[in-house]
Order: sequence, then C-alpha cells, then structure tokens
Amino acid sequence: MRATIMHAPGDVRVDQTPRPTVQHPTDAVIQVVAACVCGSDLWPYRGADDVAEPRPMGHEYVGIVEEIGADVRTVEIGDFVVGSFFASDNTCEICRSGYQTGCVQRQGVGGAQAEYLRVPLADGTLVATPGMPPADKIPSLLAASDVLGTGWFAAVAAAAGPGKTVAVVGDGAVGLLAILAARQLGADRIIAMSRHADRQRLAREFGATDIVTERGDAGVERIKELTGGLGAHSVIEAVGTQESMMQAIRSTRPGGHVGYVGVSHDVDLPGLDLFFSQVHLHGGPAPVREYLPQLIDLILSGTIDPGRVFDLELPLDEAARAYTAMDERRAIKVLLRP
Amino acid sequence: MRATIMHAPGDVRVDQTPRPTVQHPTDAVIQVVAACVCGSDLWPYRGADDVAEPRPMGHEYVGIVEEIGADVRTVEIGDFVVGSFFASDNTCEICRSGYQTGCVQRQGVGGAQAEYLRVPLADGTLVATPGMPPADKIPSLLAASDVLGTGWFAAVAAAAGPGKTVAVVGDGAVGLLAILAARQLGADRIIAMSRHADRQRLAREFGATDIVTERGDAGVERIKELTGGLGAHSVIEAVGTQESMMQAIRSTRPGGHVGYVGVSHDVDLPGLDLFFSQVHLHGGPAPVREYLPQLIDLILSGTIDPGRVFDLELPLDEAARAYTAMDERRAIKVLLRP
Repeated sequence: MRATIMHAPGDVRVDQTPRPTVQHPTDAVIQVVAACVCGSDLWPYRGADDVAEPRPMGHEYVGIVEEIGADVRTVEIGDFVVGSFFASDNTCEICRSGYQTGCVQRQGVGGAQAEYLRVPLADGTLVATPGMPPADKIPSLLAASDVLGTGWFAAVAAAAGPGKTVAVVGDGAVGLLAILAARQLGADRIIAMSRHADRQRLAREFGATDIVTERGDAGVERIKELTGGLGAHSVIEAVGTQESMMQAIRSTRPGGHVGYVGVSHDVDLPGLDLFFSQVHLHGGPAPVREYLPQLIDLILSGTIDPGRVFDLELPLDEAARAYTAMDERRAIKVLLRP
Repeated sequence: MRATIMHAPGDVRVDQTPRPTVQHPTDAVIQVVAACVCGSDLWPYRGADDVAEPRPMGHEYVGIVEEIGADVRTVEIGDFVVGSFFASDNTCEICRSGYQTGCVQRQGVGGAQAEYLRVPLADGTLVATPGMPPADKIPSLLAASDVLGTGWFAAVAAAAGPGKTVAVVGDGAVGLLAILAARQLGADRIIAMSRHADRQRLAREFGATDIVTERGDAGVERIKELTGGLGAHSVIEAVGTQESMMQAIRSTRPGGHVGYVGVSHDVDLPGLDLFFSQVHLHGGPAPVREYLPQLIDLILSGTIDPGRVFDLELPLDEAARAYTAMDERRAIKVLLRP
C-alpha cells in the first residue's frame, strides 16, 4: 500500500509499504478515508525532533473497518470510525477518569497518512458513527480525531465556560478549534491572539470576540488592558514554546486556569514565576477518546463545523506538498485522501 | 517596643524599634498575643534568600486590636483577631474569587515577631473571633494565620476529598497540617512522606493512614506500589525544591492534582515531563484569608487542634533560639509570646 514516510527533516515521501494486518486480538485494521498533517508533524519536519530512522507519519484518521481481531466487540467490519492518536483500553481506572492518554495500556497510533492503518485496542480507541456519514462531514469528523479533540481538552483544562474571558495563544488548527470549543462551553468573551488575516477570520467565525495581534510582553499587556488589568480567567496555550507558555501564564489572572496542549519544546517553567502567578496549570496530550462521542454528535447534528480548518485538500500521493504548505504557513491544515 | 530583626543569615536579634502606628485610614495596629517562626523564614536565615538590610521578621500572628484607622469597619479596638500574611481588600474581583493573595491592593504583612504590628487593609485582612478565645486555643488560632491556612489551600489545590488517595511531600508544619486538611476534606487515604519519628507520629494523629520514608525516585516508586501502580490522585508539595516538586509530580497519576505551597527555590519544571505527566498543577502563596472564618469555627468548636504543630514555646526575647531550634530541626514549629 502507499504510506507517507519521513526519511529525514524536510524529506517526506509516499512509499510502498506492507499493508498492515491484525496482530493482536484487540486490533482493528481500517481503510483510511481521510487523514491529515498535524502541527506536531512539523517538529521533526523542521528538525526540532530527531528522525533517527524512516518514520511512518500521521495519527489523525477516519476510515472504514476492514478487519478486526477476535476480541473486538464494539466495532464491526464496514463501520465508519473515528479514532484517537493514542490507543487506550477505555476500561482502566485512568481511562474511566477521563484520561485515556494516560491509559495503563496506552500505545501510540502511527502511520495514518496511508491507505490502511492498524489500530490497537480497537474497542477502546475507535468510535463508530451511526451509519455512513455524508461526505461533507468527513473533514469535521477527521478534525475530531485530534485537533478538535485537543482544542476541546484545552478549553476544558482552561476551565472555559459561562462568565469567563478566554484568551487563546496560537492560531494553528488547535488554537482555532479551542476557540470553537470555548464558544460551545459557553465562554462570554474569547480573545484570539493572531497576526494572520485568514486565521483571524476563521477565529471570528468560530466565536472569537476580540483579536490581539501583539505577542510576548506586549501581548500580555494587551490582554491585561482588555480584562480590567486582571488578566483572562482562562488561557489556552496551543504552541508549545517557552515564549508561548510564559505568555499564557502571564496573561492569566491569579486563580485563573491555563490549559496547554502545545507539545512542549525546550520549555522550562521558572518555579518562582509559576508560584506567584497563582494559576491552575493543566494540559498534555489530549484524551480525545473521552470527547469523541460528544464531538461526533455535535458534528452530525450540524451544531459545529470544525472541518473548516482544512483549507487545502490533496491526494495522499502529494503528501510532501501538504507538509511544505503547512511548514510555509500557506495552509492552516491539509487534508489527505488516500 | 521589642521586635525580631534579621541582620544577616544566621543573625537574628530582638531589638528596640519604634512602635507602629496607623498610617492609612484602613490600617489597624494590634498588640501581638502570639507569633511564630515560619519555614519560609529559614530561607534567608540559611542564606538561600538575600538579607540586603536588617529585616523585621514574622508574618503569622494573633492579637488584640489596639488602634484602628478612620475607615476600618469590621474590627474594633479590643477585638481578638487572626490575620493573614498578605493584606488584601477582600472586595476586589480577585479576592471575591477566593484568591486574596492576588488582591489588586495586596501588600505583605511583616514584623509580626514583635510586641505590636501594623496590619494594612484591616477590614479585608483580619478576622475577629466571637469574644475572647480561651488560652488553650491560641496556638491553633495562630496556626490558622499561615501554616494551617496554607496546608488547607494545598489540600484544596490538590483536590483532596472523598474517594481520593492523597500523598504529602514535606513533613514540616505545613505538610503536617495539609494532612489534617485532607482528612477534614474527606480523603480516604493519606500517605505522609516523612523519615522523622516525631513528625510521623503527629502525621498519624492528624490523619495519615500510611507513612513512606523513601525519597526521590524510591519515594515515587513506593507511592506507585501503594496505589496499584497508578500514583496518588492528589499530591501535596510543601517543601519548594526541585527534588520535591518532581517527586510530587511523578507521584501523581495522569489527570491527578498537585497542590504546591513550598516557596519555589531554584525550581525549573521541564516542559515535556510536565506535559506527559498530565497532572493538574496549582499552588502559590495560600489565600489564607479565604479560609480563616471556616478554620476559626473548626478550631473554636474543638473539631481540629492544629496548634499541636507547636512543639516549642519561647518568650519573644528568645527568638534567636527559636530560629536555631527550627533550623536544626529540633522543633517542628516554635511559638513566640511577646
């Protein structure tokens, strides 16, 4: 089958690889209907993460179940499914507490930018839609498998809700969908921090009430100005750098909440600054599986349309172009069709 | 009047200083009935914090109101009062959200190891007891002004409560009283991390169900063993070092809560470790004022007896001995009577 492989930073190719098969009784193999390129795929692409050996890429996917192991009970061959980027059993104590990304059996899911994908722990990882979804919902369902689920978790971690002013650091797909999530969770006011006109437009469509173009110290000052000098109640960090983390923490009022989902790169949080900030800090890899049933309902009912973050769609064979477009910020997020 | 002054690390003296007076209409001056030495006073005593100029010491106090400014409404001359170590107006939006230590008007209160003390923003900082408390309640009321309030906040920040296993890193007065708080908040199981027999005994009396003597990696492993390999739901950090913070974070299960109140010294939290820990992290200077009314009730009703952390009582004139006893860990906490 065809699969996207990163051979080195900047070197992404679609190669022929063996088609995956069921290896454990709890596995499923799906035919990928749509996959996409994640902001976190850009870290190795840009050389910020090592690429020690050729790496099958992609961890966001929707597809049709092609084969199941003997122990799989909740999905059937032919089901349309949405999955999450960590496989989880969804039965252990950690999963039941809503942290499937901390599952005692957790495993990464990788190689989704391909024709077929093996998904471990299928019962705990995949959620089947009720029947075959209409074609125009595919991008939104694909978004649910990572960027929407991650944005949603960030908004929950930041305690976004009624009466709250929420600021969002980062205008990638996750940041934009965190705006959508904060809106759905009932936030009064949502401040998007963005300096790109196309992303500002989408931010407003998803529910942002204010745009701040300043960054760093100036960005913090602007958030303070907009919040009576106090800082936002809830700040979402969706970048993962030292600057963005400190900007998020410093934009939050004492007792407020920072929800961070940008994969931390070279971040060291100074203890005393954190201590005196008096913020709640919560984040990490989002337990997307926890939110999938709810997100699928919101999508199929037409309440939300997160698929609008995909502003470029390419055939799988052109995966390399997808990486270039995202790396050069010509696209917010690229959908790939095998 | 007599007041405790730190002239340099290791050099604490009781000097004659001017008796404080009302300087602002919102001030009160109290006659100190009891004060004490805080674990955080040991940082400058040990040279870990600078002592650039002679510093009046002490921020924990109970006393009798001696003088009030023209705008003071909620306490009267002759009232017995308990205060907190940050002065707050208790009316701003941050105070009303329960974060008086982030008050827009916040000011430090200092110089409580003395005969008299000026307390700014008296209405928002002091809480009067109903009538004159019995002498045997004085130590407990004094504990409320910092160590109990701080331990309580730590337990709240760590989300201690029914169904939870709570681990406590640090066996100083704050850690011990965090055990008492976790017990009051209904925690099922409370693991004290301590290697001192006297502190272990007090920990058990305050509600600890298990004692772990190991530290660092071995301490983390022991907590994991006691919690089915998952880590504690709630971990309280009451030390403030890199080792103790990482021990706390690593002892917490994914989705669990770390409440940290040790004043961070040379702490840098590595972003990726924090990211993948998936913990909630909250702490900082405790908003003791928020809890004072409730804590005073619990003390006067005889429900709790936090004053037992004072295992040495000295006259104010012997303040230097109090510092030595705590520095050498011969005393958990020393009460000073002017």
